[in-house]
Amino acid sequence: MSISSFQAPQRVLMGPGPSDVPQRILDALGRPTIGHLDPQFIVMMDEIKELLKYAFQTENALTLPISAPGSAGMEACFVNLLEPGDKAIVAVNGVFGKRMIENVQRCGATAIAVDQAWGTPVDPDAVEQTLAAHPDAKVLAFVHAETSTGAISDAETLCGLAKRHNCLSIVDTVTSLGGVPLYVDRWKADAVYSGTQKCLSCTPGLSPVSFSDAAVAAIKARTTPVQSWFLDMNLILGYWGQGGKRAYHHTAPVNALYGLHEALVALQEEGLENAWLRHATMHQALAAGLEALGIEFVVKAGARLPQLNSVYIPDGIDDAKVRGLLLEKYSLEIGAGLGDFAGKVWRIGLMGHSARRENIELLLTALVDAFGQQGLTLDLDIALKAVADAL
Amino acid sequence: MSISSFQAPQRVLMGPGPSDVPQRILDALGRPTIGHLDPQFIVMMDEIKELLKYAFQTENALTLPISAPGSAGMEACFVNLLEPGDKAIVAVNGVFGKRMIENVQRCGATAIAVDQAWGTPVDPDAVEQTLAAHPDAKVLAFVHAETSTGAISDAETLCGLAKRHNCLSIVDTVTSLGGVPLYVDRWKADAVYSGTQKCLSCTPGLSPVSFSDAAVAAIKARTTPVQSWFLDMNLILGYWGQGGKRAYHHTAPVNALYGLHEALVALQEEGLENAWLRHATMHQALAAGLEALGIEFVVKAGARLPQLNSVYIPDGIDDAKVRGLLLEKYSLEIGAGLGDFAGKVWRIGLMGHSARRENIELLLTALVDAFGQQGLTLDLDIALKAVADAL
Repeated sequence: MSISSFQAPQRVLMGPGPSDVPQRILDALGRPTIGHLDPQFIVMMDEIKELLKYAFQTENALTLPISAPGSAGMEACFVNLLEPGDKAIVAVNGVFGKRMIENVQRCGATAIAVDQAWGTPVDPDAVEQTLAAHPDAKVLAFVHAETSTGAISDAETLCGLAKRHNCLSIVDTVTSLGGVPLYVDRWKADAVYSGTQKCLSCTPGLSPVSFSDAAVAAIKARTTPVQSWFLDMNLILGYWGQGGKRAYHHTAPVNALYGLHEALVALQEEGLENAWLRHATMHQALAAGLEALGIEFVVKAGARLPQLNSVYIPDGIDDAKVRGLLLEKYSLEIGAGLGDFAGKVWRIGLMGHSARRENIELLLTALVDAFGQQGLTLDLDIALKAVADAL
Repeated sequence: MSISSFQAPQRVLMGPGPSDVPQRILDALGRPTIGHLDPQFIVMMDEIKELLKYAFQTENALTLPISAPGSAGMEACFVNLLEPGDKAIVAVNGVFGKRMIENVQRCGATAIAVDQAWGTPVDPDAVEQTLAAHPDAKVLAFVHAETSTGAISDAETLCGLAKRHNCLSIVDTVTSLGGVPLYVDRWKADAVYSGTQKCLSCTPGLSPVSFSDAAVAAIKARTTPVQSWFLDMNLILGYWGQGGKRAYHHTAPVNALYGLHEALVALQEEGLENAWLRHATMHQALAAGLEALGIEFVVKAGARLPQLNSVYIPDGIDDAKVRGLLLEKYSLEIGAGLGDFAGKVWRIGLMGHSARRENIELLLTALVDAFGQQGLTLDLDIALKAVADAL
């Protein structure tokens, strides 16, 4: 056995995440490693918390990155808020709602699913009926931005319903954070989790979370220990507590946090509203270009996530061949369909640093080429003109 | 609020981890991010598994890095092997044995502690008596290299005892992997977990694990689901399965894995036995230097971990002042005492790339300076000569 160093190719990432990581963030990752108890590291931890509060639009003290990917952030929310025997209502309109159900069940709690058609937003009426039918439910969980379908749900209304029915809300904001308006405090969301590799344009591996005072009170009122030692927010809070004295919990992923810090500084520089606007604008341009090619969106206008565009694969076009050509000839990645959408849909990401005009133009060029090789001849100029007109 | 980019200082890391990270690994971290389903990424994942098998000295197919720090690797072992109502015997001779007890309890299982004095290895006789007294135990868990004390235990004998008493063994190898002899297959260890930021000299954040066929059979024979979705080895195996078709589980921490790959390539280049020898040699040199200064080890000779040297703080010396001076004047980090040893002990790491003569000489120089400032005058030349003589 003799294995050499891995030389990563330079890709253009237009899938469901990771998104393109700017050089400044890659540079930050490679800075010298310091100890996780170093006074300078603790200053950086405090700064990350402040920057995350801005990104989430919250004053929640318990706002920090979990030292593991978004799926661990999801689990952190469920294992901390639920105890065996509790009941949680879960809206399911894609892969990640389904995953929430599994999390509830593994907590020894009961999951009541509100099933919705894939590609549609969560229907508040259906949720309200279910809340009314289950007055003993403790939690309402839903996905703000379904990465598997590209549909956005009305998180403000759903969090309001949760409050009115005396439930804590758990909101998946993995793909929404930094890409579309998200107001944790204004919407009174109780527990939110996200990822770093989507609209923050950082590398994958960390999960920013935020817990409201009501969520913290529920954690403190538990009569059973949190089943996960690694994800027990009581312990994590002791580690990430403000400045000075901290209780050792685990060894923080030091260099990954350098990267997140830099990504959040970049977001602060751009301004959150500007970042949202950029995603919206680039989405309009991409949509104009795709529609000029006759490609149809899965999600109806008005419910589309700007940063995750699900489109139907045109009839007669070979899914794998197109994605293969894009990757090999253009070093361009788009996402395959997931779950119910496998083989039927492509997921085109415009997340973070990937939400740029040059990426859109490259994608349209590559698609026209790939379709042409399968006998479907389309007019690239019309598509590029539609993009230009939309900007 | 306006927060600037974080400029990490250049430290010399001689604490309990992270250790000094070589530039080639930092460079690898900053390579372009690619998708976690990219064919080239999958090749890299397969290489990491091969390299980890070498590091662990195992042919276990289920050998891979968990996408979270060592404490999550610990939890992965317990939640996969234990079900509610099971019984686990846990040897406790430091902080991490205690943490194992917590993990057992959070699985709804019963923990039988074999308590040992801190700073001593686990006593096989005490373990065997406990195994004999609890024939219904399913698991024997212990720490190979206790990072909180610097004691090494006889993992081969303990794993053998587990087998003879029909138990699965769970072995904490966080600090041992790459630093001292570790033979997962020869010793018949069933579930081992480690960390990247110790003797592999990589950044913190990942936890290599390996499960024997017997451990996999136990996981398959479970009658209850693994309580953690994120750490369910059934699902993780589908994601890390060999080549080709993989089931989406989470988004792998792409750049962190670049770093681990590079660290493991470096280990392969040096050779595992050479790495063990280097740690042993540097430990002898450090011990000679410290003893020349009259500093006493916590652990008796023969049971000392070369990579983690616990020493008593000399009478009348102010712990925090010394560590503060080392950090501020020499940019040198050593570890404080943990748990029962807080305030009484320093933990001096010689892990991975930190296990170098120049680091040892810097540390001795800094300690003599710091002691001198507190009125304890020692002869640096004698200490440096002892180091030279030992090499």
